[in-house]
Amino acid sequence: MEANKLTSEQTLENTETRHFTLVSPLEELVLESGEKLSPVTVAYETYGALNARKSNAVLVLHGLSGDAHAAGSSKSDSALGWWNDLIGPGKGIDTDKYFVICTNVLGGCRGTTGPSSINPATGKPYGGDFPLITIGDMVQAQRCLIDHLGIQRLLAVVGGSMGGMQVLQWMVSYPDRICGAIPIATTMKHTPQQIAFNEVGRQAVMADPNWKGGNYYGGPVPAKGLAVARMIGHITYMSDTSMAEKFGRRIRQEKEPFKFSAEFEVEGYLRYRSDNFVKRFDANSYLYITKALDLFNILNGHKLADVFRGLKAKVFVIAFKSDWLYPTYQSQEIVKACKLASVDASYCEISSTYGHDAFLLETEQLTTLIRDFLNTIANGNGDKK
Amino acid sequence: MEANKLTSEQTLENTETRHFTLVSPLEELVLESGEKLSPVTVAYETYGALNARKSNAVLVLHGLSGDAHAAGSSKSDSALGWWNDLIGPGKGIDTDKYFVICTNVLGGCRGTTGPSSINPATGKPYGGDFPLITIGDMVQAQRCLIDHLGIQRLLAVVGGSMGGMQVLQWMVSYPDRICGAIPIATTMKHTPQQIAFNEVGRQAVMADPNWKGGNYYGGPVPAKGLAVARMIGHITYMSDTSMAEKFGRRIRQEKEPFKFSAEFEVEGYLRYRSDNFVKRFDANSYLYITKALDLFNILNGHKLADVFRGLKAKVFVIAFKSDWLYPTYQSQEIVKACKLASVDASYCEISSTYGHDAFLLETEQLTTLIRDFLNTIANGNGDKK
Repeated sequence: MEANKLTSEQTLENTETRHFTLVSPLEELVLESGEKLSPVTVAYETYGALNARKSNAVLVLHGLSGDAHAAGSSKSDSALGWWNDLIGPGKGIDTDKYFVICTNVLGGCRGTTGPSSINPATGKPYGGDFPLITIGDMVQAQRCLIDHLGIQRLLAVVGGSMGGMQVLQWMVSYPDRICGAIPIATTMKHTPQQIAFNEVGRQAVMADPNWKGGNYYGGPVPAKGLAVARMIGHITYMSDTSMAEKFGRRIRQEKEPFKFSAEFEVEGYLRYRSDNFVKRFDANSYLYITKALDLFNILNGHKLADVFRGLKAKVFVIAFKSDWLYPTYQSQEIVKACKLASVDASYCEISSTYGHDAFLLETEQLTTLIRDFLNTIANGNGDKK
Repeated sequence: MEANKLTSEQTLENTETRHFTLVSPLEELVLESGEKLSPVTVAYETYGALNARKSNAVLVLHGLSGDAHAAGSSKSDSALGWWNDLIGPGKGIDTDKYFVICTNVLGGCRGTTGPSSINPATGKPYGGDFPLITIGDMVQAQRCLIDHLGIQRLLAVVGGSMGGMQVLQWMVSYPDRICGAIPIATTMKHTPQQIAFNEVGRQAVMADPNWKGGNYYGGPVPAKGLAVARMIGHITYMSDTSMAEKFGRRIRQEKEPFKFSAEFEVEGYLRYRSDNFVKRFDANSYLYITKALDLFNILNGHKLADVFRGLKAKVFVIAFKSDWLYPTYQSQEIVKACKLASVDASYCEISSTYGHDAFLLETEQLTTLIRDFLNTIANGNGDKK
């Protein structure tokens, strides 16, 4: 089929984000904290067709700043999906074979209910009154959507970084609803260093006088604080090597005549990227989602050997050598937990200089690995093509 | 002499910071940028006695947030010096043998002229009008003080991090004025990653509305911005391992009843440490000094083989395995540059989990290494004791 090429250049056209009212104003979603949320809307996109047996669905889970637009060229603005190189006709996650679903996470700001949504109790955006959400809550919302789509069992769940945490959560919360799981560049729980980077980002947002306890909607947004938070993030997503290769110590051609201007290219890049981020992302969502990351602990009091006990799904753990934000030892620990629980798990460590960003950039290597793994599960599932 | 003990517990009493008017209002210090500064005061401390030949002086150089108070118990507030475990009677830098000098850097805020000093042109603090300073300017000011003290040749210059950069600068600017040099946990030039961390800190300070272009003296200081900058710093000073050992994922006992409160101990620690920092450090000095770090490039257009050409001083480079802010490869590059220039250089890589902070914390290992090296130079210098 793919003949001699490993990757496909084909891009899905006119992909569209749909919105599903997961929880009507008459119902409530009970969160892990015990708090209740209503109504709840989930933004999602799908690519490819669900087969008659509803057995070819692959759920793609996004990272901190991602959204439901994982693939294709958007109908509204032609923007390409964040994993477009991996998802599409003939690609690693082949939309000719699989029905691919991607949802924006609960607490987000890209169509799914989050702190910028209207609080029915006040008629105004929740802001700081939005309840704390967890990775478990995000996954619960996804499971509701899967129910709505009539899918009993997903062929696979796949995601990197925070998406990988959601994969782990699926493995624990709904082990019977998945045939395969691909956690990429992720961890079972944050270390103090990972918490610390997020905490500094949150502090930067909350230090911005425009933040106002989270109730800034309708007025100026805490743009400067969020930009600083995002810059910190960007440093941790790249590696020492990838930054050196990309920027060196090059000085920008047109720098402002100011002594603390962005003199080095790396400074200009960070400012540019973070300014862009501020335009499309809500500062409160940043706070809520990073807190969900820090609170995540899939062990949740269990022993390492017990956390994945009884899981029948096949697991494929992927990590990147230069990723220092989610170091490979954390992925190895996931593999160990699987092995201790006799789960069918395999592991691949990809050579890359991209650091944590590799999960978005090393799509050629990911294509081969993920295609083969999905083929294996689909075959085991009786879904030969 | 030291018999069976490697380290000494003796602390110097009543150490005091003195202030020397390096450049009187009638003179000018010409900076590397070509700008002129006048007057210039240098804050410094000395420990031990200068011998008759004035050949036993060791200049200690501090890092970003250090000051002249390197050793002993301060006469004013009994605070211990930042390298007290290493400097004192019978210690690694033995004040019974050596005359130890430490100065606050130019651009600082701990007694030496910096952005918070009075600008004679306006009668108000310089603020954003303070000229850009470089590591070379800092070292020039130190050289003036050494001249004033009548010392032709320092037995050694020693320092970690930014102090190590000053050591490298001494090796290049005043090669004939030093017998030995000990650059610790440092680099010949910042990588884009190192620049990026500093840049984010600067952005955090400048995003604080209290910063006001640097002219905040007399009003509220940009405390929140500086605190965020310092938190970022703290993360980079520690290692993943040392953070895990110190904090784990422990939750604080008495946390504020707020959803973005400092829940984890690591969060509380970062907030506490950065709040303390803000009390003793000037935000503008943070901007100027980090910019000096980023602009530092000891190669300055020279080939690696030429930068230390002709240096007669012995060099001892020290690095720490878990230091990811100034990774060991950067220290190895310094050694390589020395070797290519036939400079007498040795290298030691210390096993430590403390990360970059190791240069302040691994004082027991540093004691032995530095003591032996100073003995060797002193002996070669005819200063046997």
